[in-house]
Amino acid sequence: MSSGGVIRCKAAVAWAAGEALVIEEVELSPPQPMEIRIKVVCTSLCRSDLTAWLSQAQPQIFPRIFGHEASGIVESVGEGVTEFETGDHVLTLFTGECMSCTHCASDKSNMCQVLGLERQGLMHSDKQTRFSINGNPVYHYCAVSSFSEYTIVHSGCAVKISSIAPLDKICLLSCGVAAGLGAAWKVANISQGSTVVIFGLGTVGLSVAQGAKMRGASRVIGVDTNPEKSEGAKGFGVTEYLNPNEHDEPIQQVINRITDGGADYAFECVGDTGMVTTALQSCCSGWGLTVSLGVPKNKAEIAVHYGLLLSGRTLTGSLFGGWKPKSHLPSLVDMYLRKEIKIDEYITHNLQFEDINKAFELMIQGKCLRCVIHMPTN
Amino acid sequence: MSSGGVIRCKAAVAWAAGEALVIEEVELSPPQPMEIRIKVVCTSLCRSDLTAWLSQAQPQIFPRIFGHEASGIVESVGEGVTEFETGDHVLTLFTGECMSCTHCASDKSNMCQVLGLERQGLMHSDKQTRFSINGNPVYHYCAVSSFSEYTIVHSGCAVKISSIAPLDKICLLSCGVAAGLGAAWKVANISQGSTVVIFGLGTVGLSVAQGAKMRGASRVIGVDTNPEKSEGAKGFGVTEYLNPNEHDEPIQQVINRITDGGADYAFECVGDTGMVTTALQSCCSGWGLTVSLGVPKNKAEIAVHYGLLLSGRTLTGSLFGGWKPKSHLPSLVDMYLRKEIKIDEYITHNLQFEDINKAFELMIQGKCLRCVIHMPTN
Repeated sequence: MSSGGVIRCKAAVAWAAGEALVIEEVELSPPQPMEIRIKVVCTSLCRSDLTAWLSQAQPQIFPRIFGHEASGIVESVGEGVTEFETGDHVLTLFTGECMSCTHCASDKSNMCQVLGLERQGLMHSDKQTRFSINGNPVYHYCAVSSFSEYTIVHSGCAVKISSIAPLDKICLLSCGVAAGLGAAWKVANISQGSTVVIFGLGTVGLSVAQGAKMRGASRVIGVDTNPEKSEGAKGFGVTEYLNPNEHDEPIQQVINRITDGGADYAFECVGDTGMVTTALQSCCSGWGLTVSLGVPKNKAEIAVHYGLLLSGRTLTGSLFGGWKPKSHLPSLVDMYLRKEIKIDEYITHNLQFEDINKAFELMIQGKCLRCVIHMPTN
Repeated sequence: MSSGGVIRCKAAVAWAAGEALVIEEVELSPPQPMEIRIKVVCTSLCRSDLTAWLSQAQPQIFPRIFGHEASGIVESVGEGVTEFETGDHVLTLFTGECMSCTHCASDKSNMCQVLGLERQGLMHSDKQTRFSINGNPVYHYCAVSSFSEYTIVHSGCAVKISSIAPLDKICLLSCGVAAGLGAAWKVANISQGSTVVIFGLGTVGLSVAQGAKMRGASRVIGVDTNPEKSEGAKGFGVTEYLNPNEHDEPIQQVINRITDGGADYAFECVGDTGMVTTALQSCCSGWGLTVSLGVPKNKAEIAVHYGLLLSGRTLTGSLFGGWKPKSHLPSLVDMYLRKEIKIDEYITHNLQFEDINKAFELMIQGKCLRCVIHMPTN
């Protein structure tokens, strides 16, 4: 066990919702019991960071350090930690796994009751922050906060991975790519020869496409209003591209027509509750399944006509693709190392830490899939 | 094959939405190709009849003969019918099974694409009625219309059953009891030791309870605002009764508290889309499943907060409990004959045909489970 003193390091701090991040020097306390301190190596920008950064809903938890999709190396460990040691390569987990609550004990859930999604900008254990500037707290995001040279996470919110895995690539498994693959495999359990429709062709949607293709789906229909998403999508398994703006009739009508009654599976990867309704309307009766993956920017309620359910459609959702993060993530890393799954292809931009605001701009403009942000190496 | 001429018989005709039925003499044409004419023996009143009778949505399809949960004896068969002959005992099917469309061919669906739920008051094949008064059409309901001494159904909308089964009891398997059992077994696939909450303790809800008990559910929480439903519910497997009117906090909060995080399964058997939302909120994260069974009287859209899905809850529904009506119903009749399932206990009233309006009154007043209406025997 090692547990150093306070670290002073650079972090990209959001001082208020929607304001450009400022690289500041922050103080990071030593890891508390059952926590580990990590030197972040790479962190990619996920749309959830963007959505949370833009949201005016929690003004009281700024200044704040975003970032939750990251790879790193353990710098020191807190009291009681036996699972990690300094030098271990890890992925951070925005939703943790305590390995002992009823949900962790069940093979049907990944909703850890102890280390689940943290929404108050604090650490799970003591509801405090580990970051500060001049003695004033700087809040966390999902208890990960990877937009910093160093961060602290609960030992249940990180997973040790093979030391030969390239940290600048597999950080994408920390959220987006794993979420999409899990939605296709674990949640929907896509069957061979089926028809799949995916709303939103960002990293999550294209990871659903990759998962669907690997399961032998015969048609993978990708829907996105951004025509630039069309070309690259084919490489991930999308067989047909639909742009709702190019059709006079509602897109669910188009899908019902070209699939002769609706898709077997629909995935909402936009983060728009209206689009979840559209997705459900694009599924066939009898067995059509819609999986809601996105975190909506605005309206939180999905409208579902009862008749869609009565005729046999199902609506479900998942966080992190249904994976138990500690239990399942290492096997995805191994799949990548055996070249069984693609990750590199989602990385459209590599940026240095000081250019982190550029990643936000690219995502807002719809110009990127994933931007990987490389932290300083010294 | 036998196919008689026109039959003149008594039928309970609804002349307008919500108006008391009038026993009229109607003309019933001979069965058309692939149809059978049935002497109705018993027909029970289901809430869907009541909902459709009250609805102002389709004034153009009155006069109309309601009734869709019935037993009878084949009187004559139309051209091409080889599956039935005069004298066969049958149950009518409000949703049919053609045995050859893609949905009938799939083991995942009971949504026959040819003989599914008929909503225009007509017969599937030629979009005409078989009933008339003085040459003017009298419309059907679900292509069954069992509130008549004789009726005509497509041969795919009836199923032959054991001739020793008591027709005055097993008519309940034609809709309500089968729907509830199927929701518990086929749709939710309730597992042993689980916690189940049922909203609405009518025949469908209490059939879910029976199904849950047979699957070994450890807690079956019944929710109903009518305290008279409490006592009898225990006999069907309900272990705890909750009356929302007796609690200051929302009933979903009560359920979440007493189940330590929500039920494993929730069933909406009221026919209220707001209650479907409540049911979903009463399920646990991770694996909580809500099954929507009711046909709502008013608002057709269910509001679903995305966060309930993201944390692993699932919302589905079913028509007729997911059973393929022709393929599966005979085995339920056999289970009843072997005393493995209860049916008699749902029958709170037996009425003669001329008193059919009394059945509507009893259901409106919440005084009955099922009223069985006995047709004249001559």
